Amino acid sequence: MKLYTYWRSTAAYRVRIALNLKGIDYIDAPVHLVKSGGEHLTADYENLNPQKLVPVLELDTGQVITQSIAIIEYLDELQPVPALMPASAVERAHVRMLSQLVACDIHPINNLRVLKYLTGELGIKQNQKSDWYAHWIVEGFTAFEKILAGSEYTGKFCFSHKPSLADCCLIPQIYNANRFSIPLDRFPNILRIEQNCLALPAFDKARPESQKDTEL
Amino acid sequence: MKLYTYWRSTAAYRVRIALNLKGIDYIDAPVHLVKSGGEHLTADYENLNPQKLVPVLELDTGQVITQSIAIIEYLDELQPVPALMPASAVERAHVRMLSQLVACDIHPINNLRVLKYLTGELGIKQNQKSDWYAHWIVEGFTAFEKILAGSEYTGKFCFSHKPSLADCCLIPQIYNANRFSIPLDRFPNILRIEQNCLALPAFDKARPESQKDTEL
Repeated sequence: MKLYTYWRSTAAYRVRIALNLKGIDYIDAPVHLVKSGGEHLTADYENLNPQKLVPVLELDTGQVITQSIAIIEYLDELQPVPALMPASAVERAHVRMLSQLVACDIHPINNLRVLKYLTGELGIKQNQKSDWYAHWIVEGFTAFEKILAGSEYTGKFCFSHKPSLADCCLIPQIYNANRFSIPLDRFPNILRIEQNCLALPAFDKARPESQKDTEL
Repeated sequence: MKLYTYWRSTAAYRVRIALNLKGIDYIDAPVHLVKSGGEHLTADYENLNPQKLVPVLELDTGQVITQSIAIIEYLDELQPVPALMPASAVERAHVRMLSQLVACDIHPINNLRVLKYLTGELGIKQNQKSDWYAHWIVEGFTAFEKILAGSEYTGKFCFSHKPSLADCCLIPQIYNANRFSIPLDRFPNILRIEQNCLALPAFDKARPESQKDTEL
C-alpha cells in the first residue's frame, strides 16, 4: 500500500504511527503542501482525493481511503494484531471519543487551509493567528486532560497499557502545540503519555523530523 | 440510556437519527446552548462532558460517551441490527471516510463556539461570517459529491441501499446548509440521498423541527 503524506501534516503523522505499530510496510509518497503553490492542489491529486488533503492510503487494489481515522480503523481491521482498539464496545467508544476530540474539535480548526482563510480572506494579524491556534489547543487539551484524569481506563497510554488509536491522534497534536510554543505543563497526563509513546520506535520513526521529505 | 441533546445541534441530530434507525428508546435530555448564557457551560454539565458540547450519551451504568461518531459506532456494536456499517473492512472505511469528511472537515469549523470566536475575539462582520460558513460547506460538499459520483458504492443512500453512519452525518449537515440558505443544486447526489433519507420515519423524527425543545 501507498501512503500520500507530508512530513508536517499531523493527520498523516497519525497514520504513520499506526502503520509502524502494526509493522505494515508501505510506500511513502510525499505531497508537498507548500512548495509551488501546493502539490495537493493539482488536478491529478484532486482526482485521487477530492478533498485535496493528506493523508491518502492507496491500496494495492487501487481503492483509495482518505480521513486518518477511517484509515487507522481500516488498518486495525485488516491486521488486528497488535490491536489499536480495546476489546469491548464501551471501551472502544472511550478510545474513539478521545480520538475524535482531537480529530474533530482541535485539529481541523487549526488546519493550514483554515489559517490561510483567516490571514487571507479575513486579514487577521500574526498575533491573532497565534491566539486562535493556542485557544483551540488549550480548550481541547483541557477537556482531554480532564477525561484522562477522571477515567479508570487511563494507564501508561490513553487507554490502559498499550498504544491505541487515541495515542495515534494525541501525539501529533502535541507536536503541533510544541511547534507553536504552547505551554503544556497544565496537562500532566498528556505529557506523561507523550513520554511513554515517544519512547517506542513506532512513534519515533513516524515523527515529522524523521521523514524522507523533512525540511528543517 | 439518556441523550443530552439540543434541537439545533447537528452533532446531536446525527445521534438521534441513529437511535431511531436502531429503534432504541432513549430519554431525551435537552441542553439549551443559547438560553441563560448556555446550559452547557454550567459546572454540572462540564463534569458530565469536559468539552461542554452536545451530544452526550449516558448509559444506564453511568458511563458517559461523547463525540457523535463514537456514540453511533457504539450503538452499532451494541445492537448490530439494522447495521449502520457495511460488512467488509474496505466498505466500512468508505463509510467512515464520508462520515469524517463531514464530522471533521465541515461541521467543527462552523460550530457555534468557532462562530462566536470569529464575531467576538476577531470582530468579523455578519457578511464575513456568512461567507465563512458557506465556504466550508461548499468546499466540503464539493468533495463529498465528487466521491459519491465516482464510487460504485453509492446507491439510494451514501452507501448502497440502506442508511449508514454516512447518511446520519450528511443529513444534519444539509440542514445547516439550508439554514444558511446555501444553494445546493450543484450537488445532485447529495440532494437525491437527502430525499431518500427524509422519506424514512427515523430521519423525519430526528429533525430539529420535531424535538421537544424545538423553538421556531
